[in-house]
Amino acid sequence: MFKIIARDGKARTGVLKIGKKKAETPFFMPVSSNSAVRFISTEDLEEIGIKATISNAFILHLRPGEKIIRKIGGIGKFMNFSGINVTDSGGFQMYSKEIFISSSNKGVIFKNPASGEKIFMTPEKDMKIQLDIGSEIAMCLDSMPLFSHSKKEIEEAVRKTTLWAGRCKKEHDKLQKKQQKENKQLLFGIMQGGIYPDLREKSAEDIVKLNFDGYSIGGLGLGEPREKQYQAVEFQKKFIPENKPVYLMGIGTPSEILEAISLGVDMFDSRLPTQNARRGTLFTSKGKLRIFNSRYKTDKKPIDENCGCFVCRNYSRAFIRHHLKEQSGTGRRLATYHNLYYLSNLMKDARNAIKKKKFSEFKKKIQKIYQD
Amino acid sequence: MFKIIARDGKARTGVLKIGKKKAETPFFMPVSSNSAVRFISTEDLEEIGIKATISNAFILHLRPGEKIIRKIGGIGKFMNFSGINVTDSGGFQMYSKEIFISSSNKGVIFKNPASGEKIFMTPEKDMKIQLDIGSEIAMCLDSMPLFSHSKKEIEEAVRKTTLWAGRCKKEHDKLQKKQQKENKQLLFGIMQGGIYPDLREKSAEDIVKLNFDGYSIGGLGLGEPREKQYQAVEFQKKFIPENKPVYLMGIGTPSEILEAISLGVDMFDSRLPTQNARRGTLFTSKGKLRIFNSRYKTDKKPIDENCGCFVCRNYSRAFIRHHLKEQSGTGRRLATYHNLYYLSNLMKDARNAIKKKKFSEFKKKIQKIYQD
Repeated sequence: MFKIIARDGKARTGVLKIGKKKAETPFFMPVSSNSAVRFISTEDLEEIGIKATISNAFILHLRPGEKIIRKIGGIGKFMNFSGINVTDSGGFQMYSKEIFISSSNKGVIFKNPASGEKIFMTPEKDMKIQLDIGSEIAMCLDSMPLFSHSKKEIEEAVRKTTLWAGRCKKEHDKLQKKQQKENKQLLFGIMQGGIYPDLREKSAEDIVKLNFDGYSIGGLGLGEPREKQYQAVEFQKKFIPENKPVYLMGIGTPSEILEAISLGVDMFDSRLPTQNARRGTLFTSKGKLRIFNSRYKTDKKPIDENCGCFVCRNYSRAFIRHHLKEQSGTGRRLATYHNLYYLSNLMKDARNAIKKKKFSEFKKKIQKIYQD
Repeated sequence: MFKIIARDGKARTGVLKIGKKKAETPFFMPVSSNSAVRFISTEDLEEIGIKATISNAFILHLRPGEKIIRKIGGIGKFMNFSGINVTDSGGFQMYSKEIFISSSNKGVIFKNPASGEKIFMTPEKDMKIQLDIGSEIAMCLDSMPLFSHSKKEIEEAVRKTTLWAGRCKKEHDKLQKKQQKENKQLLFGIMQGGIYPDLREKSAEDIVKLNFDGYSIGGLGLGEPREKQYQAVEFQKKFIPENKPVYLMGIGTPSEILEAISLGVDMFDSRLPTQNARRGTLFTSKGKLRIFNSRYKTDKKPIDENCGCFVCRNYSRAFIRHHLKEQSGTGRRLATYHNLYYLSNLMKDARNAIKKKKFSEFKKKIQKIYQD
């Protein structure tokens, strides 16, 4: 399932294989919450070299509903994506005021923002939804604290996350046994603990004991200092068996991703490249380009002269700038395509650097360009 | 420049050639008001077989401004479109309450909706803008009456349209002489007259006297009965020299387009296929498919089983339905792509039917499917 091919320090590159689907690690997953990466088709994703995306089980439960997706043959068929489909449980949605009502040991009470209807989400129900959606990798329902929360609140979130993870594992095992599908869905456990070394340690120990297919480090990228983020990753990574894939959730910038790779992380997701694109911050080989700067008004050059994507081969900064300012669908698609292309290639370069044992130099070079 | 290759009754097929750019007629132009067809890239357009699009000179004058487009090398370079770029003058914007202030013999006073700034648009200024934009075909500034207007008002609009057409022609000749460009921009005269045969006749006579490169029939598709629309086209077409291209503005549905082709029209534009797509009305070989109908919720079939576009090859009705309901950029792009593909192929089939002298049967077959 997960095979490490080469190492350079703690950094590693390998292959994650699930049934007929596979992806070289480390890889980046664009966010396809609602079964599509915004403005992007799966043909685009394949052209870009994206091997996995992450959808949101709770959002898909609201619309179109997991039953519809199951009838079409699962999320891969529904989206027409031949890569690895990952689903997040929707624990993150606890921080959406429009959706979250309350949380207890039993589970979370959410509200359907369209109908007002209450939805009681238990770890068990979440497993059923993700199996119906048919992703290749599911996430446990977790209780994610915010950076602003007190240590006591974070401790409580760690306790609840472990409690739910145990119930998720049990239900997932039971449901999978019933399904008797050829290719089993993997289940990842999520670790929390904020920026507190003792809580990160406790969470990692608890979750690893439950023996998941892979481990996710959650609750970071929420405003904590960069050093605390790296520390938390380093801390929990030590507890994770070497042969299990490690997924750092919601991270991040090119610099953060490379730092986490150097700590042994294998999988990433973030809204950053797609959201940045729509908001006019474009990734280039020379760092971030803020296209709304007036100097680009009549600039005939492509976003990045060193980029080979179809956007850079064909469109000027002036055109991209105009259409992003107008918030046009065409402009948003082109900018999103470019940023994903940049990040997809950055990951490929990272994998190659690990194979050549030159990851540290590579990381330093990029971090010098992306001082964010 | 315009060469007719084959005829079947009044219907004709030919080639419109401007410099190195050419398009077989009759053809359909998607609307790219703001220098892009909404959600669609020019790579998409080329794949679909679209040979011309129509942008709006007034909208481009507001943003990004014709000077920026000129600096990038003209609208074709700016948009990265290798086909024929047509610009409308913006006369149509007189019916946008947010933009229009007043109109006199001298010209039109518009308002920039963003800044509130007044813009005095004269026929002369409009010619300068369109030459700066660098389209291959420009339109005269016209005064378009609505269907609800009185005969007296429409008569006044005809008078003003002729007056401005004369000034457009004079200024365009003068400016082109100065420019001394290798490939001259064509200028089309626009005819008005509502549904009144005498006014349509008067307008056609007046405009043809000014000797334009092509002729546009305007002011239709505004709610008038279908027979009156066809009558107006038939009426004005008689006055237009056989060797000049005829453009029916803002029309329309597959049925209307084929009817107009049978009357000798060569060029079309309409928001219909792109707007319909976004609103869930999709063109198929069996007629319109209203994707929001709940029967398509779990439909695995493509939009049209007889369609070869990449959307129909890869995506289910269930997926398209979900994403159009969510108004997602991905869904809107896929639906728009499909509708344009359908219409582009309809035009190709129409051209072939004319060549085979079977246009009448072809038209009847499609009109039976599209009874709109």
